[in-house]
Amino acid sequence: MAHTARQLRSKIDATGRLELSLATVDVPDPGPDEVLVRVEAAPINPSDLGLLFGPADMTTAKASGTADAPVITADVPGHLLPGVKARLDQSLPVGNEGAGVVIEAGASDAAQALLGKTVGVIGGAMYSELRAVNANQCLAFPDGTKPAQCASWFVNPLTALGMVETMRMEGHTALVHTAAASNLGQMLVKLCHADGIDLVNVVRRPEQEALLRGIGAKHVVDSSAPSFQDDLVVALTTTGATLAFDATGGGRLASRILTCMEIAQNATATEYSRYGSTTHKQVYIYGGLDRSPTQLTRNYGMAWGVGGWLLTPFLQKIGFEGVQRLRDRVAAEITTTFASGYTRKVSLVEALTLDAVRAYGRQATGEKYLIDPSRGA
Amino acid sequence: MAHTARQLRSKIDATGRLELSLATVDVPDPGPDEVLVRVEAAPINPSDLGLLFGPADMTTAKASGTADAPVITADVPGHLLPGVKARLDQSLPVGNEGAGVVIEAGASDAAQALLGKTVGVIGGAMYSELRAVNANQCLAFPDGTKPAQCASWFVNPLTALGMVETMRMEGHTALVHTAAASNLGQMLVKLCHADGIDLVNVVRRPEQEALLRGIGAKHVVDSSAPSFQDDLVVALTTTGATLAFDATGGGRLASRILTCMEIAQNATATEYSRYGSTTHKQVYIYGGLDRSPTQLTRNYGMAWGVGGWLLTPFLQKIGFEGVQRLRDRVAAEITTTFASGYTRKVSLVEALTLDAVRAYGRQATGEKYLIDPSRGA
Repeated sequence: MAHTARQLRSKIDATGRLELSLATVDVPDPGPDEVLVRVEAAPINPSDLGLLFGPADMTTAKASGTADAPVITADVPGHLLPGVKARLDQSLPVGNEGAGVVIEAGASDAAQALLGKTVGVIGGAMYSELRAVNANQCLAFPDGTKPAQCASWFVNPLTALGMVETMRMEGHTALVHTAAASNLGQMLVKLCHADGIDLVNVVRRPEQEALLRGIGAKHVVDSSAPSFQDDLVVALTTTGATLAFDATGGGRLASRILTCMEIAQNATATEYSRYGSTTHKQVYIYGGLDRSPTQLTRNYGMAWGVGGWLLTPFLQKIGFEGVQRLRDRVAAEITTTFASGYTRKVSLVEALTLDAVRAYGRQATGEKYLIDPSRGA
Repeated sequence: MAHTARQLRSKIDATGRLELSLATVDVPDPGPDEVLVRVEAAPINPSDLGLLFGPADMTTAKASGTADAPVITADVPGHLLPGVKARLDQSLPVGNEGAGVVIEAGASDAAQALLGKTVGVIGGAMYSELRAVNANQCLAFPDGTKPAQCASWFVNPLTALGMVETMRMEGHTALVHTAAASNLGQMLVKLCHADGIDLVNVVRRPEQEALLRGIGAKHVVDSSAPSFQDDLVVALTTTGATLAFDATGGGRLASRILTCMEIAQNATATEYSRYGSTTHKQVYIYGGLDRSPTQLTRNYGMAWGVGGWLLTPFLQKIGFEGVQRLRDRVAAEITTTFASGYTRKVSLVEALTLDAVRAYGRQATGEKYLIDPSRGA
């Protein structure tokens, strides 16, 4: 029996106008390998914002429409339009991940096995009341798990696990993380604590230090403190961390981390090397909170690297069995290591208010929204 | 029978004064595994300048001493002195590589086999009339090879070979090289031509383009031309190069190369990717002609990396057999692929004139000096 469902849409037109709205779509019956999921929880992640907002200037956002059918509009600066040529005038569904209950299932064993289960889903368009997806896009959680508990089951948990796996694969023994007060940052604190990995958390405000220490972080340095460089050198000397994941991207933070890693390495070196420390020091940029150019002072010898890091290529690198191993761990620890907190839970209608769309950009400070598409306005 | 020999020395004292001079040293008889080499040719490479000049400001250079015992002095800025703490007040011999004739040999077979041969030597202090070195620091060249032909047998040939090997090891199929008019750059043109590898040469002046085309370069782009970015995109689209070796380091060149690589990759992409091209794009910085910060605009997706590259760790990575294979190729092709040209050949005394020391810094433009310590002033 076919259904209809409301879903959140994002469209940019050729005049440079972003429009966020709710559309009603037909949802086909699930195919043999598919299940129909009633979505009850879907987080707004930083990785959703590219599709949701495009390059729009959200300080120009305006609300319109009706109480049942709200509309948010905003302006895209003209010089940024060519960069989104491929999506112009298309009404695109949004939402990388979420969770819900399987209410119908196709004939295959894999699909039938999920009937009635609470599942996490990956695959886009999750800000929808109903989603028909392939069974292999789902992860079944233990009975009793609520969708709100496993909504953020994929992006942040696998990114945190990916950072730790990358650390091991590339021969490092400890980690640095910036924007460490984010939902992902807090998860990484718990993961590293569970796995006995030394983690240096770089935050941008004193109150974030208290938050992280409250959940067990040992090494927290505040980049706004006058003593930042000295504090960071101490933490890097103590931990021996030579790999950092940086969410900010722009400015001098990546370079300052490499500089401090070099000082820390030389503090424990037994002989002078004219080309600097021979230990490889790496910063992976995985976000772009600061859009300005990355500035590298290169006062850290020749054994260093800076580069982009993205979850999908990492998962391709470790292959199906590697991903399966990580997914199994997420399923087992979704209410502990990988538990997410949210500052607000909203309906689809409430997700399209000015307050809400402004909050989506403040995730580095811990702000995090969860949409429950099954809730009325 | 022990000898004495003159050798070039560099000293920085605690007051911030650099002094270059000639010292006379005792040269012991060679041990069983050693040979005594009469050095007849030693190049001044960019990689020698760190030890030779330290961080001295060579615009302050002054000549003194006598005709037979010239002295060059220059000032080291005070804030840079802590960086050379480890070498203060030590009179250090200079010269990474060179070539000469073996005039005495120790008892071992390996040493005896080199007696009378023209050998390339690696191991420092090559700006000396005589050098006693272990036989394994030597590479014997075919009879008839002159020391001036094989003086630059190690640093540039192995760096050029290392770039090509790195390209293959990391899955790239073509190369970009900056400061391409240098001695190393010209060698790389010949090597890539011999091996059928597409090489994009980035030069900084129109006359350098002519020089490189004259030795067979197919793709030459001039970074001073208004059409530089378009020219580079065309060359990168044609060659598919996704790996660059950059000798400049500072400024925006590395970033501009990545930007153009991304444009070139997307020009041939079959589908749109919201995170940019999924092909990894890499720039290795192996020199520092521009000491200013490296600025990365990051408008090239997430599949990119920038990092330091140094010959010694590369040689360690490929191991003894790998190095042996590369050395054998250098021996076979020293007068063809790996032939070096010099703008001037000087004695030890002539190496310490103001004109000479100023020229050592202009190597990116093709300027190259060769010292013959066996020549009188």
